[in-house]
Amino acid sequence: MSDHAALAAELSRDAKRASRELALASTAVKNAWLRGCAAAVRANAERLASENERDLAAAPDYGLSEAQVDRLRLTPDRLESVAVGLEEVASLPDPVGEVIDGSRRPSGIELTRVRVPLGVVFFIYESRPNVTADAAALCVKSGNAVILRGGKEAFHSNTALHALLADQLEEHGLPRATVQLVPTTDRAMVGEFLKRRGDIDVAIPRGGKGLIERVTREAAMPVIKHFDGICHLFADASADFDMAADLTVNGKVQRPGVCNALETLLVHRDVAETFLPKVAAALTEQGVELRGCERTCAILSDAKPATAEDWDTEYLALILSVKVVDDLDAAVDHVAAHGSGHTEVIVTKDLAAARRWEAAVDAAAVMVNCSSRFHDGSEFGLGAEIGISTDKLHARGPCGLQELTSYKYIVRGEGQVRG
Amino acid sequence: MSDHAALAAELSRDAKRASRELALASTAVKNAWLRGCAAAVRANAERLASENERDLAAAPDYGLSEAQVDRLRLTPDRLESVAVGLEEVASLPDPVGEVIDGSRRPSGIELTRVRVPLGVVFFIYESRPNVTADAAALCVKSGNAVILRGGKEAFHSNTALHALLADQLEEHGLPRATVQLVPTTDRAMVGEFLKRRGDIDVAIPRGGKGLIERVTREAAMPVIKHFDGICHLFADASADFDMAADLTVNGKVQRPGVCNALETLLVHRDVAETFLPKVAAALTEQGVELRGCERTCAILSDAKPATAEDWDTEYLALILSVKVVDDLDAAVDHVAAHGSGHTEVIVTKDLAAARRWEAAVDAAAVMVNCSSRFHDGSEFGLGAEIGISTDKLHARGPCGLQELTSYKYIVRGEGQVRG
Repeated sequence: MSDHAALAAELSRDAKRASRELALASTAVKNAWLRGCAAAVRANAERLASENERDLAAAPDYGLSEAQVDRLRLTPDRLESVAVGLEEVASLPDPVGEVIDGSRRPSGIELTRVRVPLGVVFFIYESRPNVTADAAALCVKSGNAVILRGGKEAFHSNTALHALLADQLEEHGLPRATVQLVPTTDRAMVGEFLKRRGDIDVAIPRGGKGLIERVTREAAMPVIKHFDGICHLFADASADFDMAADLTVNGKVQRPGVCNALETLLVHRDVAETFLPKVAAALTEQGVELRGCERTCAILSDAKPATAEDWDTEYLALILSVKVVDDLDAAVDHVAAHGSGHTEVIVTKDLAAARRWEAAVDAAAVMVNCSSRFHDGSEFGLGAEIGISTDKLHARGPCGLQELTSYKYIVRGEGQVRG
Repeated sequence: MSDHAALAAELSRDAKRASRELALASTAVKNAWLRGCAAAVRANAERLASENERDLAAAPDYGLSEAQVDRLRLTPDRLESVAVGLEEVASLPDPVGEVIDGSRRPSGIELTRVRVPLGVVFFIYESRPNVTADAAALCVKSGNAVILRGGKEAFHSNTALHALLADQLEEHGLPRATVQLVPTTDRAMVGEFLKRRGDIDVAIPRGGKGLIERVTREAAMPVIKHFDGICHLFADASADFDMAADLTVNGKVQRPGVCNALETLLVHRDVAETFLPKVAAALTEQGVELRGCERTCAILSDAKPATAEDWDTEYLALILSVKVVDDLDAAVDHVAAHGSGHTEVIVTKDLAAARRWEAAVDAAAVMVNCSSRFHDGSEFGLGAEIGISTDKLHARGPCGLQELTSYKYIVRGEGQVRG
């Protein structure tokens, strides 16, 4: 066994053992740990900042862009929001032990379906060090042990943050192996963890498409994916033009680098000539580049012609592809062919059109007359989220505490046998 | 592209298209199809039996055992129960469209979480032809298109059954590609389907361990597994001996070839000397071979010594391994090390012991004072089941109609944008 394999085996087995203990921990102890961590982050803000400085100093060696360096920086404000985030998770209800349903069966046995932790989470993420605390908080609150594998760019920040979290585990009588940080950022190491089905119950990658594809391909255990968001807004023939323009601008511009931002605008042909110039003016004012289909370009002379590739591209930038479609069903078909199952918006005044959109579009969130940007764990009331799933199995949409759990059936009898 | 790959691509894409139409089908139409299928099975019983004869005639070429040939046979009784099974699925509630929960958020948007089909199921199964109808019924009722890949031993029976189901689809205005049977039993073909993530949403293998391991390894899409059941019964120090013996015999003997049968008996050392001879007598009377740990063999002179392998073996036969453990926690540890997460039973009169078992044992069904044989979709009130999952993600325990669905968030607003 290679050194990598041996280390992955050791950490995974330690996590499994810790998870069995953690599954039985009381809500009070888990919350005390979360609040203890928040206090420790505040008390050690200077040390965290100085470890973060080491990462910032090394950033040019990793060729990080200015925006990436900025995301890496642990300012006093950001450290405070890490602490507040930990406290917020403490204030969320504990999903473990929730009775989902139950019944007494004709045989006389009594069934109770109870929410339980998944076990061990392997969480692989990139750059921002605050994710270290967020992910650990969500996993531990939902009763899961977690193995954190952060990016090399944040290695010193992550190591310092993790040490605080682990010390607090001991402080509160929880196994230190409940939260482990992989002590190397060697890429081969990730592969060794991905082999350890049996010890690790689920892998959660969060980062670029390359990372997520690699984890999906290599993982021997189930994966909860936070994949790309190719989100559409369809302006129906009956759309309120002001509303449609506002929602398009908000969806594209308010935070273009996130998965619930819009990438494509679909416009009903009956209103293309009147609506397109209006929305184009609002978008170009915000610096958005438009890439249109043939019919769009015939109306908007400034739009660039879209290539076939554009309809399948998550720009994560101030670029929007625009297509005129014949009717609602053509919009539904375009979304089925090119959407990523994330967030799909219709703007309409027509009840039948809204109902048809809701029923026929297959996506984690199907929206009528509101911004795609609302598709988010906090906006949906789940509290913090570990990602937004575009898968259909296990969890779809925002993944909060409940999505980090499974269930088991508890069955009670008085000696019943099956005849 | 090979012929196999091309055929898999065509069938998968046809299934995907059909699934979009089926997702919008009314409950009434789906139920009418199910009842139409039941009538067609009854009306064509002779033809089905004669096609089944062709499989039975070929069975010796495949080296089937007598028991396997028996399972393959479509007797008039079995055909009637296929028809009744279809009607029973018609009488179950439609999971599609169920509102799981919902809320109005501070932003004013209104959230409704609604149950939706998974999409396309690829179902791979062995020998018994009645599974063809069962699986198609569950998939279609839950709004999913299904690609069925049965075993070569039942090829003619499956083909004849499938033709009836497909004719009934057309009869009821549903796409014929809703239920497809792979027209070859070439093993390489399975691999081509397992690559088609995007078209196929989930693969469900049902059969031997080899099949399930292969599908898990090769599938590019999520898998719902019906894996092995290494189920334990722990006779605690306070157990009622009669009850513990009855539950052991029922768990082992009533149907030894199924996944919820017992494989290992764990006995608290304080009662080993009195309980073991009693249960051994009852088991040997039923022809059960006992394989014991050292302490067991010291008490039961007729028991064979168990090897290390025995504790990890699903016998599916009248063999039971027996181990004396120091206490409840030792039993919990043994189950954690050797159990398959299926069904784990304690027999006890002690409330604290029952509560500890329920909390500390990690399995799909954790039972107190009843037979492991109750872990079953029908006994649990789910109606028919497509399998019993020992996974923790998506579905755990019996998988019925609800477990063949996902959900989506429907979000309604009046032009809200995110600030």
